[in-house]
Amino acid sequence: MDTAQIVKTAHEMADAARKAALPFFRSDGLIAENKDGTGFDPVTEADKAVERAMRDVLAEHRPHDGIYGEEYGRKTGKSGLTWVLDPIDGTRAFLAGVPCWGVLIAVSDETGPIYGIIDQPYIGERFEGGFGISKMIEPRGARKLACRGDRALEESILFTTFPEVGNQIEREAFLAVSEHVKMTRYGIDCYAYALVASGQVDLVIEAGLNSYDIQAPIAVIQAAGGFVTDWAGDSACQGGQVIAATGKRQHEASLEILSRFL
Amino acid sequence: MDTAQIVKTAHEMADAARKAALPFFRSDGLIAENKDGTGFDPVTEADKAVERAMRDVLAEHRPHDGIYGEEYGRKTGKSGLTWVLDPIDGTRAFLAGVPCWGVLIAVSDETGPIYGIIDQPYIGERFEGGFGISKMIEPRGARKLACRGDRALEESILFTTFPEVGNQIEREAFLAVSEHVKMTRYGIDCYAYALVASGQVDLVIEAGLNSYDIQAPIAVIQAAGGFVTDWAGDSACQGGQVIAATGKRQHEASLEILSRFL
Repeated sequence: MDTAQIVKTAHEMADAARKAALPFFRSDGLIAENKDGTGFDPVTEADKAVERAMRDVLAEHRPHDGIYGEEYGRKTGKSGLTWVLDPIDGTRAFLAGVPCWGVLIAVSDETGPIYGIIDQPYIGERFEGGFGISKMIEPRGARKLACRGDRALEESILFTTFPEVGNQIEREAFLAVSEHVKMTRYGIDCYAYALVASGQVDLVIEAGLNSYDIQAPIAVIQAAGGFVTDWAGDSACQGGQVIAATGKRQHEASLEILSRFL
Repeated sequence: MDTAQIVKTAHEMADAARKAALPFFRSDGLIAENKDGTGFDPVTEADKAVERAMRDVLAEHRPHDGIYGEEYGRKTGKSGLTWVLDPIDGTRAFLAGVPCWGVLIAVSDETGPIYGIIDQPYIGERFEGGFGISKMIEPRGARKLACRGDRALEESILFTTFPEVGNQIEREAFLAVSEHVKMTRYGIDCYAYALVASGQVDLVIEAGLNSYDIQAPIAVIQAAGGFVTDWAGDSACQGGQVIAATGKRQHEASLEILSRFL
């Protein structure tokens, strides 16, 4: 496997995604469609344009890989690798002008994600993990990503997109953990996972995720020394109920509480 | 009144604040003190360093003005003008590595704030309003600030730091408005006011604010054509229960609901 070429392709995709997304961000004509007719799940032209831009790069450099993207679905590949793409994670933040949305790019094999990028185009931040790489590029330069490691739940910072996501039981499970932590914050979508990888945040607990929401965060956080599982402690590759933790101690203490609600 | 010199001084203060704040942002040694012994209101060394940096600029260029700052309190002036300063609004965001905190600088006379800056040092964004100025500088360049104007409550985007801020009745009042809007988002502190001024967000509703939390947002939003009052529709200069709106229609519709809880 030519990992250098995969990494180069991923960065080219992230660059193309930035170019496609930024003209829409904070533009006056941004119109949200209602995707499912029931809740508020806006699909913007930006989402579609960004995924097309990334698929174009793959068509040129990695035509034999599979693709699974939020907007344009599945394309079967022949290489054993699949690119799992969320063109704009955090569409609601995007619509409101908040720079905490991100472009999610993951490369997966039969074991799950092996490489990933979380990119924030407006700020100009890129979080990357896999193939021995664990780093971020921010306005002030590049630096190594490293989770902050073990600490007590009582000293931990917890993020989620709740109270908006999850059913009643999931919400109770989240609140049961929230009662024990030092600080709980809401609503920054994939950016919270980037903050776990960069050692700023201890825990992210979410529910109702899709695989394209979580595969890039899994790769980035695991490369930085952290843990991402479902609420039973198993693989989170398919989404659903997810917990990310910067250290084993916070992870296990949270799972012990969450498991009571499974 | 030499407004050009006041504006120049304010930008010099914001530049000094950036320089003082950034070394602390996402640093490993950031320690939060517990300010009041009851809740979680961290006061960091960063807060203090930023306010000192701004006061140093004032001592040099505007020694006769009064100052009211979050960390170092009141200094009486002789000019009739007071600089109202929140060195780091959104300390919890700052502690968690989220780039939605801001430096708030307002210039007030006996009528209230007449000029203000909301600055986000990490992203490199500055929102400014007053003395005929209404503009922002962002990574992509400078542009005019303008609220988006009237729209129905049902089409509006609402922000707040709730569920963390406010008592039970205030929370019910907020939720009563929230039921009517298209989308509610949580937890981005002063950045939400900047988004009102830049036409991205319709409403911000908060409670328990101090004057230094709201005076700069008042100046920036009013200069951009928006409205900031307390929940009774009166002056919000002293903080407390605050509503900011991008248009008269959203403002009045929200006040009608909030007034039932006063």
